Amino acid sequence: MSKRNPHIDSSRLRSLLDGVNAFGFNPQTGGFNRVGYGPADMAVRAWFMEEMRKDGLTVRRDGVANIFGRFGPADGPSVLVGSHLDTVPEGGAFDGVLGVCVALECVRAMRDAGIEPAMAVEVVATAEEEGRFGGMLGSQAIAGVATAAWVDAATDAGGTRLVEAMHDCGLDPRGTLGAARAPGSVRAFLELHIEQGPVLEDRGIPIGIVHTVAGVVNLTVRLAGAANHSGTTPMHMRADALAGLAAVAHAVPHVLQRHGHDNSRITIGKADIHPNFIHTVPGKAEFVVNIRDTDDAVIRALEQAMRAVVADAAEANRLEYAIDEHSRMAPVALDPDLIGLLHQEADRLGVASLDMPSGAGHDAQTMQTLCPSALLFVPSRGGVSHAPDEWTDWEDIEKGAALVLAALVRLVGES
Amino acid sequence: MSKRNPHIDSSRLRSLLDGVNAFGFNPQTGGFNRVGYGPADMAVRAWFMEEMRKDGLTVRRDGVANIFGRFGPADGPSVLVGSHLDTVPEGGAFDGVLGVCVALECVRAMRDAGIEPAMAVEVVATAEEEGRFGGMLGSQAIAGVATAAWVDAATDAGGTRLVEAMHDCGLDPRGTLGAARAPGSVRAFLELHIEQGPVLEDRGIPIGIVHTVAGVVNLTVRLAGAANHSGTTPMHMRADALAGLAAVAHAVPHVLQRHGHDNSRITIGKADIHPNFIHTVPGKAEFVVNIRDTDDAVIRALEQAMRAVVADAAEANRLEYAIDEHSRMAPVALDPDLIGLLHQEADRLGVASLDMPSGAGHDAQTMQTLCPSALLFVPSRGGVSHAPDEWTDWEDIEKGAALVLAALVRLVGES
Repeated sequence: MSKRNPHIDSSRLRSLLDGVNAFGFNPQTGGFNRVGYGPADMAVRAWFMEEMRKDGLTVRRDGVANIFGRFGPADGPSVLVGSHLDTVPEGGAFDGVLGVCVALECVRAMRDAGIEPAMAVEVVATAEEEGRFGGMLGSQAIAGVATAAWVDAATDAGGTRLVEAMHDCGLDPRGTLGAARAPGSVRAFLELHIEQGPVLEDRGIPIGIVHTVAGVVNLTVRLAGAANHSGTTPMHMRADALAGLAAVAHAVPHVLQRHGHDNSRITIGKADIHPNFIHTVPGKAEFVVNIRDTDDAVIRALEQAMRAVVADAAEANRLEYAIDEHSRMAPVALDPDLIGLLHQEADRLGVASLDMPSGAGHDAQTMQTLCPSALLFVPSRGGVSHAPDEWTDWEDIEKGAALVLAALVRLVGES
Repeated sequence: MSKRNPHIDSSRLRSLLDGVNAFGFNPQTGGFNRVGYGPADMAVRAWFMEEMRKDGLTVRRDGVANIFGRFGPADGPSVLVGSHLDTVPEGGAFDGVLGVCVALECVRAMRDAGIEPAMAVEVVATAEEEGRFGGMLGSQAIAGVATAAWVDAATDAGGTRLVEAMHDCGLDPRGTLGAARAPGSVRAFLELHIEQGPVLEDRGIPIGIVHTVAGVVNLTVRLAGAANHSGTTPMHMRADALAGLAAVAHAVPHVLQRHGHDNSRITIGKADIHPNFIHTVPGKAEFVVNIRDTDDAVIRALEQAMRAVVADAAEANRLEYAIDEHSRMAPVALDPDLIGLLHQEADRLGVASLDMPSGAGHDAQTMQTLCPSALLFVPSRGGVSHAPDEWTDWEDIEKGAALVLAALVRLVGES
């Protein structure tokens, strides 16, 4: 085996992925259920730690159940590489887990090639990335941006408190703050993830290198009119909340055309009308306007325009309205040097790559507050994610893994 | 007491209404719950029969729990007057019940005035008018238009079969057909009802005399696109079902302007999107387009236009679509002679009346297939109905009741 030529073992990587995906699989749906701090999530973490131990890595779990496997020097700074092991309910086979498995496969490849890194590599599988409790607790804890107040207040959609869920897993929520890594102790973070969108497939490019993770604002809009009988209420005497919602949704393309760019997205994904009867003019509508862009100024312009659209739609339909900011996350530019390194290595490997934004949130955006961070995408067939039919071709996965490996070798050097 | 001058006793009428509304009252909400064939509905029928018995009427219940109280000649044809006693869940204090109570008050007034009618008056409280099982079973049974196949197939929203509900009330569903009245045996049907709309209040007119009950078509529309991530899916690659729904709803005013008239109504009252998550482009939308008019040709033109709008909205948003006819009811012109008589009597009483359509369905439209039928409206404050805050001023009720009484005296004559 050549000391100089580490290479990805695709079948070993695939076995590792299958090993992880034995946890939380639902044979009825084909979906994976490793919801953060659920039993399958905790079980897969224990199993993955054991896998890393077998590889001779120094393994540990921090206070929020992030797990780490260290390869190379026992002391000094390290480069972190990985992603998350938790899934949404009925999620797919690749989201998160692929990045963790690629990270361990890279270490295995370095080890097999006889590489002794000058700086340690730490494989990391973060906890609770999918936001069961509304954040990305694992990477937020590592980056030192999780606050005790937030941890104390967080609940999931079913009303379970985060602190209870942690207690049930044998975790002490007070350990959250202790999970923070010292600035400087982590030199870089590399994450490979599926794109979860259709762009790479559409363009026929196997690798995306993310320059910016888009910011997002969610505005909860409530329109209130009058729920009246659909037969007895003349059109001109109505205050129809659905008509208001329709006017808002209908205006989205115009707002984007006027104030948006290629990376802008406005989505109304959740909308409920009341009383929701065939024969009743809807008296209320509640919906969330989800606005994303890589440029905070553009987000603010889109938000302002959508607020004006809501006001106009309410007035035109004789509705009262309220707009509440449900959540807001600023765009995050990832590390330019790491991005440059990844593009160089991709070129060297002869793999086409696309400089692209990420529309979805990822651990890398949180880690960027702690250390230079980078995010690589591999294609998602049909743009599908968070669903059992999530798929990435193994040919593309191999290219992505090889790029992570090449970048890692450059970053940690050899002793 | 003058034999020639029957008059409505408003406080007696009010007591009777209060008596009915003691059944099914929910003190938490102020709503009334006498859902067809539920315990409160059956109990109020027994109570009302007893009231009529105390008045000396000949009382009977038919096979579907319509109840009748006959005043005047024991044999020969009769004039039916009344409405229904059942309510929607959490309904108001006037819908249906007011017409039944006015009918009995008219008989009480005639009796007190010493009037012996040449033709019998039958007070009727129909069963299951509010359509728990999708029809107006009581009046349909009387008019002989309820079919055994329909009775056998009908279920409520909770999946309870009509035949089970009837059995639970001690009714034999096979008795439905036997409830049909022989053509010619009912000379007329008079119904007083609340308008359930805002027109009379808006115009300041206490009485509406309905010329036509609007027809209604309900089209169930299903739009199917792709449920993708709101951050990762570029706008031009989306197939957003909510955008399709918005385009359809947004087109309604244009369709009405082009193909509709004053009596036209198009309502999207029920709409559900899927998966209905903040961060997911809606992959599916299902909604019902409710189209009403007093002219069947107009309904068909509106329907055709809305079908074209759905097709266009689907194409513009890359959606598949399906349109199913959920239900259809043709407009019904009520009896011109009865309408003329009511206008004459209103004029004679010095009460302003409005010649108007009914946007909602009523027993009178079904009864028109059996006998000349008429429908009077009294104002609904704010147009509200099917809700606890349903209200009609007693001043207006007295005028409506006096008009029913006057019409009734003319129709049945004196022996």
